[in-house]
This record gives sequence, structure tokens and C-alpha cells, in this order.
Amino acid sequence: MVPRYSRPVMTAIWSPANRYRIWFEIEALACEAMAEYGAVPKEAAETIRARGDAALAAFSDADLARIDEIEAETRHDVIAFLTWLAEKVGPDSRFVHLGMTSSDVLDTCLSVQLTQATDLLLEDLDAVLESLKTQALKHKMTVTIGRSHGIHAEPTSFGLKMAGHYAEFARNRERLLAARKEIAVCAISGAVGTYAHVDPRVEEYVADKLGLAAEDVSTQVIPRDRHAAFFCTLGVIASGIERLATEVRHLQRSEVREAEEFFHPGQKGSSAMPHKRNPVLSENLTGLARLIRSHVIPALENVALWHERDISHSSVERNIGPDATVGLDFALMRLAGMMEKLVVYPERMMANVESLGGVVHSGEVLLALARAGISREDAYRIVQRNAMATWTKLGEADGLSFRENLGRDPEVVGRIDAAVLDDAMDSARHLAAVDRVYDKVFGTAS
Amino acid sequence: MVPRYSRPVMTAIWSPANRYRIWFEIEALACEAMAEYGAVPKEAAETIRARGDAALAAFSDADLARIDEIEAETRHDVIAFLTWLAEKVGPDSRFVHLGMTSSDVLDTCLSVQLTQATDLLLEDLDAVLESLKTQALKHKMTVTIGRSHGIHAEPTSFGLKMAGHYAEFARNRERLLAARKEIAVCAISGAVGTYAHVDPRVEEYVADKLGLAAEDVSTQVIPRDRHAAFFCTLGVIASGIERLATEVRHLQRSEVREAEEFFHPGQKGSSAMPHKRNPVLSENLTGLARLIRSHVIPALENVALWHERDISHSSVERNIGPDATVGLDFALMRLAGMMEKLVVYPERMMANVESLGGVVHSGEVLLALARAGISREDAYRIVQRNAMATWTKLGEADGLSFRENLGRDPEVVGRIDAAVLDDAMDSARHLAAVDRVYDKVFGTAS
Amino acid sequence: MVPRYSRPVMTAIWSPANRYRIWFEIEALACEAMAEYGAVPKEAAETIRARGDAALAAFSDADLARIDEIEAETRHDVIAFLTWLAEKVGPDSRFVHLGMTSSDVLDTCLSVQLTQATDLLLEDLDAVLESLKTQALKHKMTVTIGRSHGIHAEPTSFGLKMAGHYAEFARNRERLLAARKEIAVCAISGAVGTYAHVDPRVEEYVADKLGLAAEDVSTQVIPRDRHAAFFCTLGVIASGIERLATEVRHLQRSEVREAEEFFHPGQKGSSAMPHKRNPVLSENLTGLARLIRSHVIPALENVALWHERDISHSSVERNIGPDATVGLDFALMRLAGMMEKLVVYPERMMANVESLGGVVHSGEVLLALARAGISREDAYRIVQRNAMATWTKLGEADGLSFRENLGRDPEVVGRIDAAVLDDAMDSARHLAAVDRVYDKVFGTAS
Amino acid sequence: MVPRYSRPVMTAIWSPANRYRIWFEIEALACEAMAEYGAVPKEAAETIRARGDAALAAFSDADLARIDEIEAETRHDVIAFLTWLAEKVGPDSRFVHLGMTSSDVLDTCLSVQLTQATDLLLEDLDAVLESLKTQALKHKMTVTIGRSHGIHAEPTSFGLKMAGHYAEFARNRERLLAARKEIAVCAISGAVGTYAHVDPRVEEYVADKLGLAAEDVSTQVIPRDRHAAFFCTLGVIASGIERLATEVRHLQRSEVREAEEFFHPGQKGSSAMPHKRNPVLSENLTGLARLIRSHVIPALENVALWHERDISHSSVERNIGPDATVGLDFALMRLAGMMEKLVVYPERMMANVESLGGVVHSGEVLLALARAGISREDAYRIVQRNAMATWTKLGEADGLSFRENLGRDPEVVGRIDAAVLDDAMDSARHLAAVDRVYDKVFGTAS
Repeated sequence: MVPRYSRPVMTAIWSPANRYRIWFEIEALACEAMAEYGAVPKEAAETIRARGDAALAAFSDADLARIDEIEAETRHDVIAFLTWLAEKVGPDSRFVHLGMTSSDVLDTCLSVQLTQATDLLLEDLDAVLESLKTQALKHKMTVTIGRSHGIHAEPTSFGLKMAGHYAEFARNRERLLAARKEIAVCAISGAVGTYAHVDPRVEEYVADKLGLAAEDVSTQVIPRDRHAAFFCTLGVIASGIERLATEVRHLQRSEVREAEEFFHPGQKGSSAMPHKRNPVLSENLTGLARLIRSHVIPALENVALWHERDISHSSVERNIGPDATVGLDFALMRLAGMMEKLVVYPERMMANVESLGGVVHSGEVLLALARAGISREDAYRIVQRNAMATWTKLGEADGLSFRENLGRDPEVVGRIDAAVLDDAMDSARHLAAVDRVYDKVFGTAS
Repeated sequence: MVPRYSRPVMTAIWSPANRYRIWFEIEALACEAMAEYGAVPKEAAETIRARGDAALAAFSDADLARIDEIEAETRHDVIAFLTWLAEKVGPDSRFVHLGMTSSDVLDTCLSVQLTQATDLLLEDLDAVLESLKTQALKHKMTVTIGRSHGIHAEPTSFGLKMAGHYAEFARNRERLLAARKEIAVCAISGAVGTYAHVDPRVEEYVADKLGLAAEDVSTQVIPRDRHAAFFCTLGVIASGIERLATEVRHLQRSEVREAEEFFHPGQKGSSAMPHKRNPVLSENLTGLARLIRSHVIPALENVALWHERDISHSSVERNIGPDATVGLDFALMRLAGMMEKLVVYPERMMANVESLGGVVHSGEVLLALARAGISREDAYRIVQRNAMATWTKLGEADGLSFRENLGRDPEVVGRIDAAVLDDAMDSARHLAAVDRVYDKVFGTAS
Repeated sequence: MVPRYSRPVMTAIWSPANRYRIWFEIEALACEAMAEYGAVPKEAAETIRARGDAALAAFSDADLARIDEIEAETRHDVIAFLTWLAEKVGPDSRFVHLGMTSSDVLDTCLSVQLTQATDLLLEDLDAVLESLKTQALKHKMTVTIGRSHGIHAEPTSFGLKMAGHYAEFARNRERLLAARKEIAVCAISGAVGTYAHVDPRVEEYVADKLGLAAEDVSTQVIPRDRHAAFFCTLGVIASGIERLATEVRHLQRSEVREAEEFFHPGQKGSSAMPHKRNPVLSENLTGLARLIRSHVIPALENVALWHERDISHSSVERNIGPDATVGLDFALMRLAGMMEKLVVYPERMMANVESLGGVVHSGEVLLALARAGISREDAYRIVQRNAMATWTKLGEADGLSFRENLGRDPEVVGRIDAAVLDDAMDSARHLAAVDRVYDKVFGTAS
Repeated sequence: MVPRYSRPVMTAIWSPANRYRIWFEIEALACEAMAEYGAVPKEAAETIRARGDAALAAFSDADLARIDEIEAETRHDVIAFLTWLAEKVGPDSRFVHLGMTSSDVLDTCLSVQLTQATDLLLEDLDAVLESLKTQALKHKMTVTIGRSHGIHAEPTSFGLKMAGHYAEFARNRERLLAARKEIAVCAISGAVGTYAHVDPRVEEYVADKLGLAAEDVSTQVIPRDRHAAFFCTLGVIASGIERLATEVRHLQRSEVREAEEFFHPGQKGSSAMPHKRNPVLSENLTGLARLIRSHVIPALENVALWHERDISHSSVERNIGPDATVGLDFALMRLAGMMEKLVVYPERMMANVESLGGVVHSGEVLLALARAGISREDAYRIVQRNAMATWTKLGEADGLSFRENLGRDPEVVGRIDAAVLDDAMDSARHLAAVDRVYDKVFGTAS
């Protein structure tokens, strides 16, 4: 993910420094565990921990360069790190990584990084939820037109829109918690996962200290179905971002103008057209959603490794690991800020509700006719006829409102009272269930 | 999904007959609920139920043609069905669909179909799990070579391989249960989901009768993040199928020959080469996995509907709904049958273990040298040197085994006892933790 | 692709009858070629041709059932067909398929089917191009607002919009021609493609008769990079459909109302709201585009077959072959019809152009100030200030037009003549280059 | 793309310095063109060119910081650059960007960057082609087993394998040239592409100077179907890389050992198992192919921008532009190096050919029986029986070769001469057409 769409707090998780810090932690914890059951001298484990901690605390670009230098020869990243560590630790380094294989370190490290990233994403989701709840409570009874197919349907409230997105992001939070559990897994099982050279208690110890679960069967690697499920979840969340971003883009359209992204003092919308105020944040989020979604397929393709494992997943994960989490973190925080500052225009919303001459109340009139004993097919024909007559003359001098047209239709007049028709034109009906929905979504306190 | 890869039991769920049966059930239940709280006469609800049930029980191609005929005029599938139903029910049909919108019927029906499909898929997964468990128990101690990068690594057991796949499919079963919950949802909330014309109790009643949960906020449609999460899960399961299929394809390679798909009497492998016996089932599963995975992206793209909803998701779901579930059902049952009948060759496995002159034990020798006080770097150099010497002369007259080469290496001889070296060549070490893993995966009874 | 989105003319290409017809043609042509250079008796080739032609001409469900029956035993589709053919041809059938392998038949047949499908798609594209050209010529000078970010930018003509889509579909036609060339390839090279048992002249002969090119190197199969490139092209075309469909959906939005899909007499837009007229065709096309695009990834995954080939691509192609071509054919014809009948509202377009009080002319005013010697930064500030003042008061009693606001701004008044300002408010400027663009797109005759 | 998989020569194309250099070039060329037809004073154009060139030549981190600072206020990248440029150029800067819009600069710049990147990729492809040709010529007659389904089929030559991949990469080169043409396009057409404020001759001039074609209809942006087609092509090439990488991975499998990636002195294959030499380059390429393929879908999703354009494509392209080209450049160069140094083991290839007791010649025996007048069905049964008898006893003491089994089969003995059978066991037949194929692929000089 390019820096433009990255927050340092998330990129730091994927920095070499953090990676090496975690690698050492895994090795040091493993040594401690081995010392506990006698495979490694206690003093050696202590020396490794002390000197390693010091080396990592003082980790500098020079260390980075040294590791790269070793890797250039060995062509193996974990061996390069271990060799560097040996230079820092001294002879006791021969007790490091004893009976372990690189995957033990790499995969468990990835689990730690992904859980760190997920914890940040959970906070991001909380910020999005907070911004949506604020708008929902503020606009609980702000009447706005509901649209299906992009066509005015019936009135609803802007708060209900927000509540719907809130409910989706609340589901996304649950999904992310489940996804976190998928990848919060530790594997220290040695070559091809048989524990032939490393006691299973080491795995349990390291897992416990790192707040992870021990993998049931790790065929040297932690199975990639876990990571696939994780990246799928990020893709679902990204699509939820796209849905909300699309809503805002629509609301800000010049013909709609019901809401607008906050336009900063000094901001310029276009180099050529000074009048422009564009929904650039929500458009940007739409693109970011495409990117995050694009990581799903390679993550799924990573599942079918050959036999106990191959290494084809590695280059994929080195990219999509950071790209997906950094991108999603940025997108969620951008979304939270955007929704928090969203400028809403209730008068314009009401003007739009009324702009089609009342035909948006056709459904209630249909029901009134049905209640009056008219068949569905006849009632539909009558209402459709009056709605189309209204629609066709919208804005014209001889145009009549839907109510007026209905009032002149002989098939209507004899059958429904004028009061019933008047009542059918009232948007209040559409807010009647708002409380009930809010109770379900936000709890009774709302 | 073409018939070649379809089982009738699953395609039946997606047949017009089943769809109309469910549509009627939703409408009839809604009438019953409305009758309960007074919006519809009880007698009308009973008439609708009775005549509708009869019409659906007698549903024939003529009915299908009649519905198609009406749809050709109205260009609306639900209205076409309701009009047909009205012809069967008579005047009381004006109480059908009262205050509801098409999405109430369509989306709740899709939920019913997807839960029906999922219940079948759960049975399929059980069959796969059973076949894997059987092989795992049978070959718990069958020694085979573990491979990383496609290169012989260290011995393991064939049972452990099976246990690893079992554990993955057990996770997939858990995921599918969670996915079922995602889409087992009912929405009867009317236009733009405000319940303006339909009492929320109707939704609760119908949901309860259909074994679904009532949606929290349905903006006319059940939000598509639920379906996206569902199809993602199918994609993860498909990738698990691909992993196991890839394993079998590798094991059947002419150079490996450790296992083989059952070859039926009368079966022909190739029109040109009568000697061929090909792993066609697992190759086929590999392709099916690609197909099922390909449904994930359009499902994610379906999330961002415009405003309260548009209808762009419909054409997608009319295809991927059946394609993904029918395809996965077929694939899982094919996989279960394939694994159940898989022919395993333990002697060939052992021959392969031994085919590299013992270098697969290099890890244990490395540890032995480390225990003898040699640094990791020196020990590695020594072991690598002897392994390469062995490897290079494999099959040649003057070639020595890894054990023999080590026995002549002055850097080894002085430092490790011959008995330790002999012991390092023993595969038994790699099976020591099998019981422990089986306990985790299959429970103590294994 | 479900029947709902299928045209019989395209599905017929993928029917078993057409497939077997092509299989036979390939076998019969190969026999003729072999007869020509002596590998097969001329009489045998003639008998095969005559009896085979007759059998295919009389091909019935009974034949289909017989082939299925043989395949159930042999588990090999080409052998099943050859066995059935042998039953029809008699003893000379031993000269059929001589030295060939199934892939020779299957892959060459797929090439024939894909070229047949492509020829239909090219006709479809012509229909789309025709409908776009008609609208472009009709609305060459119909002023409409151009929008970037969904925000009114500057005026343009509706014809130019159409010309832009025309140019894209003209590019798509070129791409499809190139894609046709990719897959119009014949391979008759026997097992693993070495021509060990079949003279290369057979391939040349069959290719020539079928209007295909002979593959350079077919490793038993025609390499799947060709098919991947083909399905990519369909994905690009589908995305072009989505772009145009999205345009129409936007234009039909209730707040925009500049164009509308034709609404048929008797058509019903919603079961609950009789006033609804929805852009259901363009929404449907949006979904179909997602489907066709989804075939791209499995087609790319099909490229990396193992060694000389595996069979994992087969199940993918049995589905995406028909799905992508049938779906795209349906979508293109639906698009052509939709664009042909599109109802355009020029008055509404003009009303929208004027709806923002003239701020859409901010760019020209910016230039006028620059021409008057003001720096870009100052000019921008001045214009932006007046545009925002106009925008903020849109529709309010004390609101002024952009022209009015500019006329009162002391930083403007002293520097630009009123006539220049008036002139800047003229939309005619934006149509000045229309002729030039039309010449490039449609040729000078436009 | 992470630095690990990046070459500086390609990342430089995507650096801010190169981008700003191109932006300025476009603006300066546009000024020159405008000066030519009088819209801008010639002296101003010269000043802009001179001072701008100087500023860009001296471009430093301080300039980068200054541009970022302005963008932080204006929230518009092109305006930030223009403001910085104005600070360098002085008052004449008001003639910069006259009548243009940001997209003119951004899109034309992207075209320049993509063509620069493509030119590099074409060189990379040449290197791959060269490496493949070298191996093909060297191993033109190196007999190896051809495999379908991973099962030994019939002999072929290793050179033919290489020739097949060469032909695919030659096609990929053609495709990339076509893709280059797709995106080598310039647009300078102002807001919503009407040329209202900029003479079309400016576009022609700039296009000509930059070696691009002028876009036919640019609705402010260069239509994204062009870029979609471009990224599709990269996806096809990536899949070709995966196919070749998969071949190498298979050949290096421990049981196959027919070829091997070059193993460097000092290289270590595994931290735990010193005997390991893994095909890490080809595995890495497999993963990179997944990544590059994953850019195809977002590129396709970018096509359907709203109306004349939205900005959702921008965040996508800022990532996949560099990621796809940098990744593919790295992958191609890695592939070329890998294939150039590939270690091939002809003896092992021959050993594998012979490892199945001669059953790989079953096809020729089938033909011999057919020639002897036996029906296809009977001949198949006879040959299959003998092949299976051979296969089942492979490596066993009482096992017979295919030739031996045939020699004892009464259904064979009476019908085919022993000499014919002997001849059928000869691999030479399978190399007979090699010259012909080489002529087609490499030309007659090969």
C-alpha cells in the first residue's frame, strides 16, 4: 500500500524491526520452554534472552544491513537472522532454534502480526460504529426518501439508513473477531510438523505466552485455510465500506445534494473548475475497497500448498499481509472521520421527498383500495394510471399532484374517502417502526 | 453448473417448483400472521392456505407456462406468481402479499434455499470427514516421507497427512455452520424496510415458522454482506478440496506412485495410450475449486447496492446461488468417495523414504552435532557437505549412503558415537507424537 | 447461465448435438487427410464420412443415451463417442482416430465452438454500435451537463456521451477480433504433441478445412494462455457494458430523469408501489457484467497445467465456455435493444444544466480572469468564492445566480467586461469540437 | 510491491521525481503548442520551459516536502504541483495549465509511465525468450518422458518442452505490444473532454512529442477499458510464468530429479534440514503470478466510472500500476536467470522414461494391432491388459517388462511380428517431428 493510504501505526507492525523483535521473542520463549524440561541449559536460555533483548532494543540500520548481507549469501532469511543473533549472543546461540524449523518462526510471527493488526482494525471499526451511531441518533426522525433501483420508493428516515450501516458494521466486527481467532495460532512442531526434534510442550508454552492457541495439526506450516478465511473477512468489510461510500457519493450528487463530505477551508476541488466540491473521500474509499477485495483470491489460491508445504504463499503474504491491513486500517479511519463530519441537509431531503408530486405514496393508496374490496390487479391498474399521469407532467404548468389526480379519478372517488387519501399522503407512517428498529440495533437506551 | 457436475438432490432446491413452493409458504404464513392480529380475515387466510397448498401440490408444467406468460407481460416475476396464485385462490387473493414488497418474498426465499443447500453441504462434509478419519486411523503408523517444497524433508505418517486434512475440513464445517447463521434470516418489512404497511410481528411469525431469524435492519433487502460472507466460506472450503486433490494428484504421479484413485473395471484412461490410469477425479476437483472460488468476487461486488437497494445482485445470485452450492455438493461427494476408495501403497511409501540414501535424516544429525557442542554454523556445514555428497552420487556405483558418508567424515567421527548416528537414521522418532496429535484431532478414542 | 439470460442461438453452440457434430467432423477430416497420404484406405475414409454423416444427421436422444451409457463404463467421454460411432460405422471404424489423442478432438472442437460463439458476439457488438451511433447522431447537439465525481462539471452534448461509448465498443470489437485469432487454432498432434503417430499434414488439412490455424507447439493440448486471453477480452467487454449501464441507471435516477429505459405497456415496476418505473435492464446488465468478469480468474488459473497437460481446466471450461459466451451474447443484445429504445428527455437535460445557477461556467470565468492578467491562485480564489456563494443559496429567495454574484464582486467588475462574463455563461462553447470528435469516431460522413 | 521483489530500474518509473518530471513535460509541451497558435505568449512558454526544466533538474527532497505541504492545504495533488511550479516560474506561470484539467496531466502521465514500464517488460521478455531458446537448442534431442495428468504418457524431448514455453512467451510478447498500444494514448481535452477551453491541436502536439496517440473521445479521462486490457495482459503473462515455474518445481521433485535450480555456494535450503535444495525461485514465481493476476479484477472494476468520470480508479491505479509492473519485471528477470542457469539431468530423464517397464509405448502397440486388422475395442483391451500386468509388478522380482508381457500374450504373438514390437519400444519415433516444430517456432536457422 502506497504511503498515501497508510497510517504509521499499522505500517509499524509490518516493519523489519517489529518482525525481528517477534522472531526473537519466539526463539527466546522456545529456549525458556526447552530449559524448563531440560533440553537446554537454564543459563543458556537466560543468556540468550538477556543478550537478545539488548540487541533488539538497540536494533539499528546497521543490524538490518548485516542481516541482509548474510541473507545475500545463504539466501535464507531465518538463517540470516539466526546467524546475526549468534553474533550477538555468542556460543550459547547453538541452543537457539533447536529442533525447530523456519516455518515455526515465520508462521507464528505472522500470527502475531495479524493479531496486532486485527486489534487495530477492531478499534477502527469501533470508530466507524461510533460515527454511524451519532448520525443515526441525530437523524432518527429526519425524513428522507428511500430509493430502490435509484428511483424514489417511499419515505424513510436518514437515521434508519445510518442504523442499517451500523448493523452491517456491527456484523463486520463480529466477523473480524471470528477471523482473529482463525489466525491467532502458534505452531512450533519442527520439520513437517511431527515434533520429532521439539517437545510439544514448547509449542504450548510459546502459544500461551504469546496469547495464541496451539495449532492442532501443522504440517510444518499453519494451514492456509485460516489465512484465507481471514482475508475473506477483510474483503467483506471492504465491501461494506464501499456500500456506505456509494451512499454518500449518491447523496452528494448535484441533483440530490442531501449530504456532503466536509469541505475544508483552502480545499480545491478541481484545477479547472473552481466551483467543484467533490466526494473525493468516498470515491477514494470505493477504490480502496476494490484493492482490499483483490487480496481474497490470492489468499484462497494460497491454500493448496504442495504436500506438507511449499513456499509459494510467501511472496503473496509478504504483500497482501501489509497491503490488506494497512489499506483497511486507512480506509476505516477515513470512513469514520468522513461520517463524523458529514454535512447533512434535512430541508433538501424533504424537498426531494416531495419532488415527485406525491407518487411515492402509491403503495399506501394501493392498500387502501385493496381494503375497499378491490382486487389487487384492478387496484394496481388504477394507482399506476394516476401515478404515471402525475409523473409525466412533473414541473409542467398543467401538472397535478398525485393526490389531485386521485381525487378526480371516478374509480377512486366513489370508493375511498378523501380523508383516507389525505392520510395516505402522510410520511409519518414510515417512521412508526423506527423506535423498534433502534431498540434492536442500539439497545433500549437509544 | 452443467449436469455433469450436479446431483439432483441439490439442483431440486433451485428448481422453479421448489422456489414457488417457498414463495407460497412465505405468503401463506404472512397471511396467517396478519389474520392473527386482525389485518386479514381468518377465513381468507384459511382459504388462501388451502387453495394455495392444493395448487402447489398439483403444480405442473402448465402452471410454469402460465406464470411465464404473465411475466412476459408484467416483466415482474413476483407479480406474475401472485397473479397466477390469484387465479387459483379467487377473490380472497387480494389479502395475499398485503403491505409486502417483492424483496420480502425473494430474499426470504433465498434464505430458505441457502439453508436447505447448507444442510446438504454439512452432510457432505460429514462424509468427507468420515472418509478422512477412516484413512487416518488405518494409516496412523504408515511411514511416508514428508515433503516441503516438493523435496523430501523428513518422515511422517500417512495418517498424519490425513489428520491434517481432517482438521481442515472440521474447521470448514465450523465455518459453514457460521455461514449458515449468516444467511438464515427472514425479512418481511415492506418497501424500503420501514414496516409502514406491514406489522413487524408478521416478520417474527414467518421467521419463526421457517426456522430463520428476523433481520435487524433490512433496507427492503436482506443486506448482501451476509451472502458475501456465505460465498466466501464456500470459496474457503473449495480451496481445502483443492489442497487435498493436489495431494492425491502428487501421490499418484508416475514417479511417486504412493496412492492411486480407484480404477474401475472397464475404465479407460486415454483414447491413445491404453496404459494410462490418471487421477481424473482429483484433477476434476481442482477445476471445480477454481469455479467455486470464482463466485466470491461477484458476491463481494453485490454488497454495495445503491441506496435502499438496486437489483444488480439478482442476476448474479440466480447463477452463483445454484452454481456454487451444486458445484460444491458435487465436489464434496466426489471427494468423499475418492478418499474412501483411495488405494494406498505403503511399501512404495517406504521405498521413497529410503530413496535418497538417508539424507532425510540430516536434521537429526545436525542436532546431534549441536548437542556435541558444535556451533550451528559449523554443524550445518558438516551435515550439508555429507548430504550433498550422498545426493550427488545417488544410484551410482560408487555412491555411499548418508550414514556411510558421515561415518567417514573426520569432523563427525571424533565427535559422535556410531550408535548415535545409527539412531539418527531411524524413522520411528517421527511417529512419536502421532498419538498426541490424534488425541487433539479425533479425541481420545482414536 | 440460467435460461433467463440465454438466447437459443448461442446455447445451441454448446449443445451435445453440436459438440458431437464437430467431433465427428474433426475425425472425418482427419481420416480424409490420412487417406490422402496413404495411412488409411480411401474407401474406409469414404465409408466413415458417409455413415457418420448419416448418423449425425439422424442424431437423437437415443444416441445421447447410448453415448452416456458407454461413458458410464469407460469413464471417458471421447472413447464413449468413438465406440458409439463404431457401432454406426462398422469395421472401418478402426481407422477412426488413428494415432490421435482425445485432446486433439476436444481442443479443436472447443476452438470451433469459441469461433462460432465469437462470430455471434461480433454481430451483437455491431448491433450495440448501431444503437449507439443512432443515439449519437440524433443527439449530437443535445446539451447536457457533464459530470465528474457525480458533480456538475461543464456542459457537453448527449451525443458526445454516446460517441464515447461507441468508441469504447469499437475498441472492444477490435479486441474481440484479436481474441478470435487467439483461439481459432487446431491441434492434431497426438499424445504429448510429438506427431509420433500422426502425420503433421493431417493437422494442416483439418485446420484448413475448419478455417483454423495449426498450433505451433501443442503439448497435447492447445496452450491455455490463448483461452485466458480470450476470456480476459470478454471481461473487458463486460466492463464496458457495465459502464454504459451505470450511465443509464444514473440518468434515470428520480432526481436526474434525463433518460429512461422504455417502459412497456402492461409492465409493472413493483409489487408494492405502482408508481415505480425502474431501470431494470441496466441493473440486470450490471450484474451480468460481474458474472462474466468472474470467469477471468479461473481462465487465468487454467494456464498452468502440469507438464504436457493435466485435465483440471476441463471442468472450468465446460462451465465458463457456455456461461461467458451465452451471458455476454444475452447482455449485448439486451444492451442494444435498451439503447435503441432509450427515451431521452432533452428539456430535463437543459433544466439540470441550469439548476446550479450557472456555477458550471466557473472554468471559463477562471480563464477570463487569467487572460486579464490575474495569477492562477488569485483568480481561483475569486471564482471559488462566487461559486460557493451561489451554490449555498440555491433555491433560496435571496439567492443570486453565479453571473449576478460575479457582477457584484469588486475584484471581478473592474477587470472583466460584462460582455465577457455574459459570454462565459454560454453553453455553445462546449459543443464547438463536437464535429471534430464525430469525424474521428464515425468518419466524415457523420 | 515490497522491495524484496523490486528492481530499482522499474521502481524509478513510479517515483515522485519521475512523475513530476513527466507532469512538467506535459505542461511545458502544452504551453509550447499554445504559443504556436497564439493562446500563450512565446516568451512565456520559453520562460516556463527554461525555469521549469531547471527546477526539475534540481528537484530535491525539499521540493517534495513543499509540494506535500501545499497539498495538505488544497487536498489536490495537481494544484499543489502547479502552485510549487508557479513559485519557481514566476508570473508567467499563469499561462501554465491554461484551459486544461488535472486529468489531462494525470492520465497522460500514467500513459507515459506505463509505456516506459512496458518497454522494460519487453526487454525482460526478450531475456526470457533467449534463456528458453538456449535450453531448447541445447536439449533439442534430449529424450524425456512426456506426462499428461502427471502420469507418464509417451517420450518427447526436453527441447520441445522449452520450445512450447518459448512459443507461449513469444505470444505474450505480441500481446504486450498490443497492450502497449492500448495505453500509449494522450488526452488534453479539458473539463469533461469537450476541448471547450483548449484547442485540440494542443493534444495532437503533446501526443506527437511524447510518442503517444491522441485519444478519440476522452470524457475528461482516458477510458479505463484501455488500462483494463493492459492489466489483463500482464495477468496472462504472469500465468505463463506460473506454468513454466510449475514445470520446474515438478522436475526438481525428489522423485523426479530431472532438473534443478542452480544452488549457489553458501546457499542454505532449510534451517533445520541441511540436505535441502529447494526450488525456491520457481515457488516464488508461482506466488508472484498470483499477485499480478490479482490486479486484473480491480482493473476491470475501474472501467465503469460514473458519467464523465469519477476518481475511484485513482487509489487502485496508484497501487496496481507500480505493483503489477514492478512485480512482473522482477518475476520475468528472475525467470530468465533461473532458466538460463537451470541444471538439467539427461541421464535421469532417460532413467525415468524407462522406469515403467516400457508401458509408455502402449500407444504404438495399439496402432500396430489396429494395423493388423484388430478392432479398436479389442486392441485396446489387449494392450491395456499387458500394460497393467507390467505396471502392477514394477520393481518386483517376478515382474516382466511390457515387451516381455506382450511377447507372451497369445492374442499378440500370432498377429504382430516381434520386430514390429521391438520397434514400438523405440523412443526415436517421438523425436521425428522435432525439426519441423523448431522450424515453426525458431525459424529455419534452428
